[in-house]
Parts: sequence; structure tokens; C-alpha cells
Amino acid sequence: MTVPLVAPAAPRRAGSRSPLSLTAVRLDSGSRLGAWQQRNAAATIPHCIGQLEEAGNLDNFRRVIGESEAEWRGFWFADSDVYKTIEAVAWEIARTGTTDFDSWLDDVIGLVARVQEADGYVMTWIQGVHPEKRFAELDWTHEMYVLGHMVQAAVALARAGRTDLLDLAVRFVDLVDATFGPGADQVGYCGHPELETALVELYRHTGERRYLDLARHQLDHRGSGLLKVGSLGARYFQDHAPVRESQSAVGHAVRQLYLNAGVTDLVLEEGDQSLLEAMRAQWDSAHHRKMYLTGAFGSRHRDEAFGDDYELPSDRAYAETCATIADLHWNWRMYLAEGGARYAETIERELHNALAASLDETGTRFFYSNPLQLRPDRYSEENAPRERTPWYACACCPPNIARVFAQLSGYVASVDGDALAIHLYTGAEIDVPDALGGGTVTVRTSYPDAGRVEIAGPAGLPVALRIPTWAADATVDGAPVAPEADGYARLTLTSRPSVLDLPMTPRWTQANHRVDSVRGCVALERGPQVYCVEQVDLSEQIRLDDVVVDPTQPPLESDGGLRIAVTPRREVGPLYGAPSTAPTGEPVTVRAIPFHTWGNRASGAMRVWLPAS
Amino acid sequence: MTVPLVAPAAPRRAGSRSPLSLTAVRLDSGSRLGAWQQRNAAATIPHCIGQLEEAGNLDNFRRVIGESEAEWRGFWFADSDVYKTIEAVAWEIARTGTTDFDSWLDDVIGLVARVQEADGYVMTWIQGVHPEKRFAELDWTHEMYVLGHMVQAAVALARAGRTDLLDLAVRFVDLVDATFGPGADQVGYCGHPELETALVELYRHTGERRYLDLARHQLDHRGSGLLKVGSLGARYFQDHAPVRESQSAVGHAVRQLYLNAGVTDLVLEEGDQSLLEAMRAQWDSAHHRKMYLTGAFGSRHRDEAFGDDYELPSDRAYAETCATIADLHWNWRMYLAEGGARYAETIERELHNALAASLDETGTRFFYSNPLQLRPDRYSEENAPRERTPWYACACCPPNIARVFAQLSGYVASVDGDALAIHLYTGAEIDVPDALGGGTVTVRTSYPDAGRVEIAGPAGLPVALRIPTWAADATVDGAPVAPEADGYARLTLTSRPSVLDLPMTPRWTQANHRVDSVRGCVALERGPQVYCVEQVDLSEQIRLDDVVVDPTQPPLESDGGLRIAVTPRREVGPLYGAPSTAPTGEPVTVRAIPFHTWGNRASGAMRVWLPAS
Repeated sequence: MTVPLVAPAAPRRAGSRSPLSLTAVRLDSGSRLGAWQQRNAAATIPHCIGQLEEAGNLDNFRRVIGESEAEWRGFWFADSDVYKTIEAVAWEIARTGTTDFDSWLDDVIGLVARVQEADGYVMTWIQGVHPEKRFAELDWTHEMYVLGHMVQAAVALARAGRTDLLDLAVRFVDLVDATFGPGADQVGYCGHPELETALVELYRHTGERRYLDLARHQLDHRGSGLLKVGSLGARYFQDHAPVRESQSAVGHAVRQLYLNAGVTDLVLEEGDQSLLEAMRAQWDSAHHRKMYLTGAFGSRHRDEAFGDDYELPSDRAYAETCATIADLHWNWRMYLAEGGARYAETIERELHNALAASLDETGTRFFYSNPLQLRPDRYSEENAPRERTPWYACACCPPNIARVFAQLSGYVASVDGDALAIHLYTGAEIDVPDALGGGTVTVRTSYPDAGRVEIAGPAGLPVALRIPTWAADATVDGAPVAPEADGYARLTLTSRPSVLDLPMTPRWTQANHRVDSVRGCVALERGPQVYCVEQVDLSEQIRLDDVVVDPTQPPLESDGGLRIAVTPRREVGPLYGAPSTAPTGEPVTVRAIPFHTWGNRASGAMRVWLPAS
Repeated sequence: MTVPLVAPAAPRRAGSRSPLSLTAVRLDSGSRLGAWQQRNAAATIPHCIGQLEEAGNLDNFRRVIGESEAEWRGFWFADSDVYKTIEAVAWEIARTGTTDFDSWLDDVIGLVARVQEADGYVMTWIQGVHPEKRFAELDWTHEMYVLGHMVQAAVALARAGRTDLLDLAVRFVDLVDATFGPGADQVGYCGHPELETALVELYRHTGERRYLDLARHQLDHRGSGLLKVGSLGARYFQDHAPVRESQSAVGHAVRQLYLNAGVTDLVLEEGDQSLLEAMRAQWDSAHHRKMYLTGAFGSRHRDEAFGDDYELPSDRAYAETCATIADLHWNWRMYLAEGGARYAETIERELHNALAASLDETGTRFFYSNPLQLRPDRYSEENAPRERTPWYACACCPPNIARVFAQLSGYVASVDGDALAIHLYTGAEIDVPDALGGGTVTVRTSYPDAGRVEIAGPAGLPVALRIPTWAADATVDGAPVAPEADGYARLTLTSRPSVLDLPMTPRWTQANHRVDSVRGCVALERGPQVYCVEQVDLSEQIRLDDVVVDPTQPPLESDGGLRIAVTPRREVGPLYGAPSTAPTGEPVTVRAIPFHTWGNRASGAMRVWLPAS
């Protein structure tokens, strides 16, 4: 493999599954995913670039070298927002060849180069505010976390053909390697995992084995209790147990999920079965006991953390956008490691719900926390405002979503054995790799609005189509499909388009009885989309928290949307008392909207889970 | 009123209700409340005294004056734990005349005197660690909070006959008055309310009006946004709105509730109706929309805060012991301000549930957070351990519960108009004030184990007996009682004892439909006690989270305890899926125990709210 693919996470070690180049998958701009990718390029990325200037991230660099008089601004790891934005730009360049960002990149990378110290070190908060903390407080400083994003940006940019940032990043990595690497006299890893997956990407891009060795070295030592424990405990940064022994997703959700992405990257390159076993246990923990219906993670505000098993409050869901992004990255790597439709099904759930909801329609306002319920009297909190805002003091999420949407084409399809596997249904043209015979596959669909997916391509090409677990009645060319054990239906393309039909009947979903927070409630789903109800669609006389639905009644399709019958409770009653009676209000029907579109019309109460009669 | 009563909060301003001296109410040591008070004197107070030495609180004083080489230890407001322990000791001296603590008091008060600066200032963290922060960061330093506890301890000790601490406290108060008082050129109030109620007590004790003026000055300015706002927002320390305009209990629960106690103290002394109106709105918010069934407050760990209306998760209840204590103090003041049985009913709920649960059987191990559910996989967190512990890094709760149990006799009865009002049923002898004719009332009962309460006393004495809202079928001498509008039944004692009979039939309770966290669940209550089920009472094959109760079946009384029939679910099922079926396990009966006794046998899962079929 001499020419690195531009997609993220293309393993060097030969496996039966491999990703496609971003340029090989062209999304229709009229399709859902394609439209998101367009909006990202046209609105979100330019917005991020503007905010980096406004919020002071770039001044933080300039002031280190006397090019600005500004005070240091933002959180201490604010440099990472710059790198994440560069990464988003890099994938856009890789995907479209745009030159729109070249002069911005010249400026910013030139600035980073001037700030970088002779030994390779570059992190503006340490350099410009607390030089005495350099590598001295790994539990909190985020130095290697920032480096990880620098490396990911540099690799993406190098894959798009530009290597100046890579030269800088490699120098910083080499410093970390010399300081904490296998040959150094001290062990050191970061309180915030992220560098591990970046190092494996760096290894993939450069072929330099010592970057893989450094990643393994850090992962082998993590959990040895080296990090100084604060009031949030060692679980907070996954230093409570070795990676191979940690069976539950715990602590800060973004940290755990980035860590898992790094571990799985190592599995992809080295095939370590003990690590893969640990990742399977982690996956079950995170997805079978700790995932929100929307594909969000993190039940607690205090430490932005996973809760206990089945602890999934809708109102206090932390559900940080970055946690879902980390999980998406991890799931893609798990798919590459062992296949199985559950990984892409998770990615689809995340994209169409938690991630899509994190932006407004314009792509320039963001949620950081993505709860499944907003109460009428909730006031805005840092990180959890009532409405999306243009930026955050801790702005990790907006540029993170920008880089994911720029990568989106990379998750649509892959090579899986001798077949072209299609994971996400969206209008697209897919170049078939030469190893599978070349040519182009064209996918036409208005999914998820409708379930019909037409696939045309070289006759004789084996394709593997992911059949969602909710689509038991799916058909191909009118005949029931029989997915294989891995959840994909195999077929061979002919000269006529094949038509996959996924049933898009709305369905009521209930949570496991151990999920106390939504007991007695149902949620509405249709295809991959979770729905919600907003107060704005109810009359002022009816409060959202007082309505009850009858799940024996199917939702009504109306004007391309959904409506459901609800019965309002008229009496509020005491806080505690005798068992309450049935609601006595007059039933009405109310609109249900896809969760990802909420909060675009008015600031008001919202519920995904609705009390059931 | 020339001889100050020893009970807390005896208003100087004449009102129709007034508390009794602690010495006037003697609890039977065999009664529930009396036993708690005995245990407090014999175990909890000596334990706190020992911990103050072990945890470094006293060394923090010694090091300021070179009497110790120790590092500063604990939270910056650790001095307050010393004062709360002194206050507990003071009420014990007032109540029993004990001299056991005299030499300890000599030592500690002598130490405080040596540490106090010439201008009256004394707070060891500022003096010994950050002198530059003196009165400079009122949002966080807790200086006036610490002073508040110093004053409360000093007043209690003075009422018990010892005035040396009061002399010291007054000097510090005078410094605050000169610095931030009505005549000073700057306004200043503390990020943590507490001084306000203490100043009113100081005024009550000394008759010095300027202490009341200082309390009013601080309360009048609170909410003007003077405190520097951190990431938790101005609501965190109730500086978002003036006291008169703040209709909802918000932010840090202990802060809000201590503040309300201080405001109500001011109402008691000045009769300001606008403040009383604000307190009524606050009371409704806290008790009708934000109180746990156990009488606990605070739904959020992040900022130890009230949640939104009806946001009352059982598992993540913060439910800090100190918040319930603050509410108890506030309710007593609300009762004194306007009467009404709801205040004492709240106090009773708090005492028999949240507060009693915060200690173990020995009185030397404590919860800080008192959740209503413990999941099987919950790991111990700072402030929220799985099991009670002997002390905390932030040890506010243990000495706080010690002072409340030492005061307990003061909440049992009061003068209410021309009647002796009895609020808490417990075996006791009560000296009737001369104004009501003198003599002694004797109460005999094994309440809350049984509902029979025998009251004997001077013939012709009017008594007002609180009739709990759950006791609609209560009788006096066999005849149905008819409580008046304030919830008290009035009768006149005769030469034969009167017998109040409160129905103690176990009852199933449901929460308001807006409380999402316990929808579809019921809780078991009997008299004032909330019950719970512990995993230790189920076989290993049945997981507590999998059982369902049938609330149409009454609980069974057995061996003085309660048993309930439960049906286990056999299948766990997926995290999300189609609506689940009824449980298929074989029904069993399981013991239910009073909530306050949980966690005394084994560390394991516990639930107050049980899923109902």
C-alpha cells in the first residue's frame, strides 16, 4: 500500500475490510448526507475559521511570539480547535480539491511554525501562560491531546497533498517519543486520550513503526495509576485499570471513546486478540447498557461521564456531541476489525440523530449537550444552553462536527472481502476499487425520507447491503432479503439496477425495564430517525409534560410528516399522593418531528420519550 | 424577654407562636427521637471531636500561630466544622448541663482566641494560606459563612451559660459590620448564605439592633449580581435576582435553604410581608415541585443544586444531608412566622427519612448524599460513596447532623396562641410555660412503630395536636378528629389522659406524573416513614432492578416489619426494542425496611421507588 488512502483509518495491515478513498465516494448534494456535507463546506467550516479568530484561538498563538498583545483566551487546550478545523479543511481539500482555504492554511501553519520551539514543543497555553507546567501535570494539561489533534490534522492534510503541518507535528511527536516513549526513562500518557489513534494514523501515513510502538507503549501503560487523581477519580480519565481489564465504559465519555478508537486502531495494525476482546466488552457496555436512543453518550454533567448501567436520564443527558463523534470513529474501526452490521447501524443512528441535532439548519449554531428532553423551566447552562449557540468557551464540538461531516463519504461504503459493502444509504456515486473490478456504482434514494434504494453498477459485482435491525421486512427486487450472520445481505449486481426496499413504517420503541428514567414511556422511530414532540406544536393550554400517548394507536402519516394522538392530563395534582387516575382531557393530535430538527423554530419544551397510557 | 430561651430561633418580636426551651422538653431515651439524641451525645459528638483532630481542622488553627508544623488540610471553609461541633456541644450542655466537654471547649476556644487577629478577623485558610484573599473573593472564600457558624455556636454556648466564644464572635461580626455594613462604603455578602440567620440569632441573644440591621442589609442587597459569576452561574449562590423576586428554589440547595432560613428570621423579627410572600413562593417551589419523598433536596451532582421543577432522579439524587438540615431550620422558622401543620409535617418527614438515613446505627458513619436508589454497579464517588463513611474531605454534614440531634427537643412542641402545640410525636415530658398555666405534659408513645399517642397533663390545658395529612382517619379518644384549617386538632386536656390514634396502615404512594424519573413506580410509606427494598433481602437469582410490585395488593405486616409481593422479570432484553411483556417469574415476597435503616447490613442495591405492574 504505497499511496495512502485519504479516508481515515486505512490499516496498513492487510485485512478483509478496507475503507474507500473520500474521492471514490461522491454524495449527491440532494441527498441527506450530501446536503449536510455541502452545508459543512459552505457554512460550518467558514464559521469555525471565523470563530477561531474571534474567540482568540489564533491570538493565543500570536501572543507567544509577540505578534499579539491579547490576553490568553479560552480553555487551556484551545489549540486543538485550530487543528480540528484544519483537519476539516484538509478532508474538504482531499474530497473536492478546493483551493479556497490555501491562504488561510498558509497563515495558520506559518504561525504554528513560528510558535513551535526548537525541540518541537508547541502548545500555546503552556508556552504563553504556564511554562513551568510543561509535561509536569499530564493528568490535566492536555498536551498530548492537543498533539493528537495536530497529528490528525497533519495526516489529513498530507493525504490531501500538503505536508508542511506534518513536518511540524512529527517534530512534536518525536519530542514526546524521546520523553515518554519506549526508550525513555519515564512513562507518560495524557489525561485525555486522543494521541493514541493519531499516532496509529501517523504510522499508517509514514510507515514509521516507532509511532505505532509509541501508541502501544502508552496503551500498555494506561491504567497503571500514573495520573494524579483528582476529585473525579481515576475512572474519569480511564486510569483505574489496564485497558485489557476494563470491561465497562466509565468516566468521561469522550475520553473513554477516543481511547477505545485508539485501542482498536492498534488491534487493526497488530491483531492483538486480548485487546479486541476488551473492546468487545467495552462495546457491549457502551451500546447495550449506556447509549441513548439518539446515539448519544454520557449521562452525567458533573464529570461529563458515563453513568451506571441503564442510567440514562433524558433531561440531564449530557450527551456531548464529541462523545458521539468519538463513538462513530470507534465503530468504524470496530467494523474494519471484525465486520458486522451493528457497527454501521450505530454510526447511522448517531449521524441521523445525535450528530445531526447538534447543528441548526444553517450549520452555524451548535449544541454541546444533546438532551432528549427539555423542561419548560430549564435555564441555560454553560455547555447545556436551551438553544444552540454560535460557539462555546470550550469549543471542542463545533470543529469536531465539521471534520466528521467532511469525512462523511468515507463511511458510506467499503471493501468487504470480495464485495463492495454499502453501510449508509444515500444518493452517491461510488468508484469500485480495481481489486473488485473497477467501474462505478450509483445509488439513488431519498432515504431516510423513503426506504427505496436503487443500486446500479457493473454487472457481476458482489455487493453487501446492510440490513438494519428494524427492517426485518426488507426486500430486494421484491423478494424478502435474508441477511447473513453479519447483518449484510449479499447479492450480485446485474445489468439492471437492484432495488432494496426498507420498510419505513413508524414504530413505537420502549426502553429496557432497567432504564428507570423512561419507564412507562415510548419513543417514536421511523427508519433510522428518532422523533420528538415540541411544545411549539401544542396549544398553550396543553403542556407537553402533561400529555399521554396510546402506543396501541399507530402514528398518522400526514404531509410527509407524522402526527400522533395524545390525551392531556387536566389536573396536575400533588407532588406525592395516591396513584393517579387516567387523563381526562380531550384527545388531540400533535406533530412529531425528527429529533435532529428540534429547536429550529422556538425555544421550548421538547420530549423524545412520551408517557404511554 | 430578658432570659434568652436556649432553643434556636426564639423571636424577640412578640408573635402568637414561640418555641420552648430545650430544658423544657425531655425526650424518653426509649423513644425514637430520644434514642437518637442519646446516641448523638454518646457517640456522634465525641466522634466529631475526634475527627476534628484527625482531619486537621484544629491543626489548621494551630499552624497559624506556630503551634503546629502541619500543612493546611481540608476544604478552605473547614473552620466551620469546628464551630458546628461546638454548637452541638453547646446544645448538649444547655439540655443536660453536662460538664464533659468543658476542657475541650477551653482548649478550642482558647485556640481560636489566640488565632484571632487584633481587628477580630479569624479564618485559618485565609490567615494561614491566602492572606491576600481576605475579603477579596467573597464569591468563593466562605469567610462570612464560617463566621455564621462561629456566631451560631457562640450564641448556643452563651445560652448554655458560657460567653467566651461569643466575645470572639462579636469582634469578628463587628469587623464585618464595619467593612460591609449599612454604614460602610462597600456592600459585601457571602457566596454561601449562613451568616444572615446567625446575625438574627445574635440580635435575639444580645438585643443589639445593629446585628439585625446587618442581616437586613445583606439580604436587601443579595441578588444584585455583586458576586463574581463562575461557570456554575449566578443562580448557584442565589445572586441572580433579589430575594423578594426569586420565586423558585434554584442553585446550590444548601445555600438556597440557609438563605431562606435567614430571610424568614428577618420576617420573624420585622414582619416584612413582601419577604414572607417571597418565602411562601420559595416554599411551594422547594416542597411542591423539588422535594424528594424522603425530605431531601438537590437533584444534581454538578453544582449540588436544585433541578428543574419535577426533576427528581432517585439514583442521581444529590440529596445532601445539610440541605435537609437547612430546610428543617427554615420550616421551623416558617411555622413560627405563620403556623400551619405543613411545616412540622415536613420536619417530621425529614427527620424520619433523609436525616435518620444519613447516619448508621452507631452514629459514627455518615452519608453526605442520600439517594433513593443505589444501582448494583455504582462505584463510590467523593461525597456519594456506596456506604457510609466516618468522615469526608468536605465534612459539613456530620457535625451538622450532630447539632440538629442535640436541638431535637426544641422542635417537639411550642406555644401556639393559648395552646401547647405538639408537632412531633415521641415519648417526652414537656414543661408547660407559666403563660399557659405551668405544669407538665407527659407524652407516651412508641410512634412511629405504632400510632397510639397518650397525652396527660394539667386538666384544662388547651393543646393543639398536629394531624398528619396521611392520617385522615385519626381519632382522639375514639372519636374522629377534625383538624382546623392549620392542620392541628384542638382539645382541652382533662384529668384522664387523651389518646390520639394515628392510622399506621402501610400505603402505596405515587409521584406526580411530571416526575419522569419514577413514572410507573410506587413507594411504600407507613406513618411518617418511607420504606425501601434492599438487594440483600432478595435471593441472588433475583435482581432488585428486575422486580415488579402489584400496588393493588396491600403490603403484609410480619414480625413488626413489612413484606411485599414482587414478581421478577426473567428476561433482561435489549436496551431498546418493542414494548416489553409482563414479568414471567414466580412471585415471591420480600422484606421492606424503613429507608433510614438501609445500608446497615450489606453494601448492595436499594430502591425506594418500585416498578408497578
